[in-house]
Amino acid sequence: MSQYQELKQACYEANMQLPALGLVLFTFGNASVVDRERRVFAIKPSGVPYATLKAEDIVVLDFANNVVEGSKRPSSDTKTHAVLYSHWEHIGGIVHTHSTYATAWAQAQRDIPILGTTHADHLTVDIPCAPPMDDQMIAGDYEHQTGWQIINEFQRRSLSPEEVEMVLLSNHAPFTWGKTVEKAVYHSAVLEEVARMAYLSCTLRPDVPRLKEALIQKHYERKHGVHSYYGQS
Amino acid sequence: MSQYQELKQACYEANMQLPALGLVLFTFGNASVVDRERRVFAIKPSGVPYATLKAEDIVVLDFANNVVEGSKRPSSDTKTHAVLYSHWEHIGGIVHTHSTYATAWAQAQRDIPILGTTHADHLTVDIPCAPPMDDQMIAGDYEHQTGWQIINEFQRRSLSPEEVEMVLLSNHAPFTWGKTVEKAVYHSAVLEEVARMAYLSCTLRPDVPRLKEALIQKHYERKHGVHSYYGQS
Amino acid sequence: MSQYQELKQACYEANMQLPALGLVLFTFGNASVVDRERRVFAIKPSGVPYATLKAEDIVVLDFANNVVEGSKRPSSDTKTHAVLYSHWEHIGGIVHTHSTYATAWAQAQRDIPILGTTHADHLTVDIPCAPPMDDQMIAGDYEHQTGWQIINEFQRRSLSPEEVEMVLLSNHAPFTWGKTVEKAVYHSAVLEEVARMAYLSCTLRPDVPRLKEALIQKHYERKHGVHSYYGQS
Amino acid sequence: MSQYQELKQACYEANMQLPALGLVLFTFGNASVVDRERRVFAIKPSGVPYATLKAEDIVVLDFANNVVEGSKRPSSDTKTHAVLYSHWEHIGGIVHTHSTYATAWAQAQRDIPILGTTHADHLTVDIPCAPPMDDQMIAGDYEHQTGWQIINEFQRRSLSPEEVEMVLLSNHAPFTWGKTVEKAVYHSAVLEEVARMAYLSCTLRPDVPRLKEALIQKHYERKHGVHSYYGQS
Repeated sequence: MSQYQELKQACYEANMQLPALGLVLFTFGNASVVDRERRVFAIKPSGVPYATLKAEDIVVLDFANNVVEGSKRPSSDTKTHAVLYSHWEHIGGIVHTHSTYATAWAQAQRDIPILGTTHADHLTVDIPCAPPMDDQMIAGDYEHQTGWQIINEFQRRSLSPEEVEMVLLSNHAPFTWGKTVEKAVYHSAVLEEVARMAYLSCTLRPDVPRLKEALIQKHYERKHGVHSYYGQS
Repeated sequence: MSQYQELKQACYEANMQLPALGLVLFTFGNASVVDRERRVFAIKPSGVPYATLKAEDIVVLDFANNVVEGSKRPSSDTKTHAVLYSHWEHIGGIVHTHSTYATAWAQAQRDIPILGTTHADHLTVDIPCAPPMDDQMIAGDYEHQTGWQIINEFQRRSLSPEEVEMVLLSNHAPFTWGKTVEKAVYHSAVLEEVARMAYLSCTLRPDVPRLKEALIQKHYERKHGVHSYYGQS
Repeated sequence: MSQYQELKQACYEANMQLPALGLVLFTFGNASVVDRERRVFAIKPSGVPYATLKAEDIVVLDFANNVVEGSKRPSSDTKTHAVLYSHWEHIGGIVHTHSTYATAWAQAQRDIPILGTTHADHLTVDIPCAPPMDDQMIAGDYEHQTGWQIINEFQRRSLSPEEVEMVLLSNHAPFTWGKTVEKAVYHSAVLEEVARMAYLSCTLRPDVPRLKEALIQKHYERKHGVHSYYGQS
Repeated sequence: MSQYQELKQACYEANMQLPALGLVLFTFGNASVVDRERRVFAIKPSGVPYATLKAEDIVVLDFANNVVEGSKRPSSDTKTHAVLYSHWEHIGGIVHTHSTYATAWAQAQRDIPILGTTHADHLTVDIPCAPPMDDQMIAGDYEHQTGWQIINEFQRRSLSPEEVEMVLLSNHAPFTWGKTVEKAVYHSAVLEEVARMAYLSCTLRPDVPRLKEALIQKHYERKHGVHSYYGQS
């Protein structure tokens, strides 16, 4: 029996959540889970339909993208996951989808403005949209560079990946993450709903104002602050 | 056996209607039921997923927000419910959701204009959107003040909570209520559909005219007037 | 056993199709079937939820709106159905819904322009939107006048109810009909889809051109003409 | 037992995928499969609802539209399929739907611009919208000419049907194809989702830029190039 059984099972279950939540069509998405102690991560195999995916199909790799276990080819986005795990030490899972509304914002190359408390309950800034990569990055090791495009954008904006757990890639689609892969899946679903609400508000009222600062802070503290009183303790 | 068994069961059933009607994602919503004689109300616990919610998880509180029964922390919106129950004596249940279209209007900080008879069958004015709270109210006892923001807006507009059983909070989302919690749930679903139709009409024709006065009155009387002839008597 | 058993069963089944096709929320719709020989029609009772509706709840009335059989109050739209059956001798069933996109066009007080063959396969003109009724008609026998508003608009535009089997009522919602109630239900679903496609085309390209005349005629003849070759003969 | 049993079964299964994927309402669509050796193709019968469709209802025809097997009238779009099979030797299946968003673009008479990698993973040009046919073509052998309208547009734009496996027909709806009918069905679903995302991006930001060339090439090569690394080999 595989020593990565549990890791692969967790990865499998997270991946199966994506079609159940309406976040992927066909194979347009993938979830991964990291094992920090052994410095490996488990990810969906490339191009395998969710209907036939099994836990034993999950591929385990190290951070240099060497396959440690599994006979299938890993997701074509694997190198992006590897870069994020290497660079951001506190994330436990990553999800990539082409969910409809989030992808529409990514195609429009626009940050999703913070317009309401549904957004503010999860992060206190606009959801960042990283700009298109320059041609050299694209021509090079593309998926590896995709990871760096995300990290660089977070550094340029002084964002923390523990506070802002989602990003859009211009012309591409979203990535989300979290302390656990369950949180990463949750953030993908929240992002899609926030993207949908913001689309509706912006088309209804193109000059819609951003949320006022006092409200941003209040909602953030309510959920994350020292005196947090949301959820069960 | 709890003396609040029936109250908690009614509250549980109302809460379970919200995901069934497509009005909540994850835990973004809550329903409460009041017992006027004992001056207590039952409400959903905070952050508990609908899939695992049980009737015994429901929390019972008095109008001063003291927990009377229940081991879980009540919804973070509890104080808003308490203020509305205290101030408005004729309402029996309250529902709060972040349903997509209603929330999009709240984010746009716009009243939902009365454009058709689907709307007029339920209320004869635009669905009010209370303005953003001022910074002092937000920094203070926020959820308590949210209740007052609603009540103050109704007073400012001379609206009756028995005639207008729904409101949007700018940058936040809707609250609805009714003589019973079943009515409050019904109003949440009606609001979402009216919000969706109004979004479509307004984006199709930005200068869409409001419903003419004669038609507003007719539809209102048809349902609520002395000579009402809608539904079974 | 009722002599109207079959009529009531047909009416019941047609009504149950409306929620199944996603055309009604709660009780916002009704279907009726006429018996031309006995000059009566069967219609849904008012305000009865679809989940609990039974064939024996269906109400049978004559064209003067007298209840012939049934203990429940008939739909509040009954008089509109009666006027249409009286005046248009070749229709066998009528459906009224508040389906989302069709209602959005009715609220915008706009005809649905003929933009494609999905529309042209069913009718060769814009889907007419009858203007708002004048105040006298509204204050009078409202639902009866609603029927006349439809008939008058068809006469004003020289439309035949056998060629154009659907209409929007400004600020209200659609009515559809057909040789049978099954056709009337079918037309409600087609109308909703055509309304949705036209909404999308018009918001994507506000100056979208109407379908060219040659194509309108071709598609119409293909389905309805002497040399029809659509469907099984 | 029919010598076309297998062909008809494949055609039946492809057709049944269309409602399952939400791509057709009622009978608004059809799929066909070709047998290159015997120079025949199997197609859905005209106007038969999916709920009652059976494999033995499928009609087999030669490329001159003569029925080779089957007692039902074939789809009214049969001649369009025949022209495409005759002219394009490498396609194995064809699907026609009136899926909502793709049809909305066809009605708007606009190509779907390439805006993101969801699109670029499947084709590297805008999805072509063939212009409305001229009146002579329409008045003549319409469905036959529809096939030529597609072929001529591909020639005019120097497009290869093996690289671009989908097209919109102005005022009508999409056709897709592929090496197999399963691929053709897949392309119909991909087209609908790409059309939906592009609709959202274009209404959110009317001046949305097309995807940059380097990214188009990269995504194309990733899937189709010599060094392809998407999916299992």
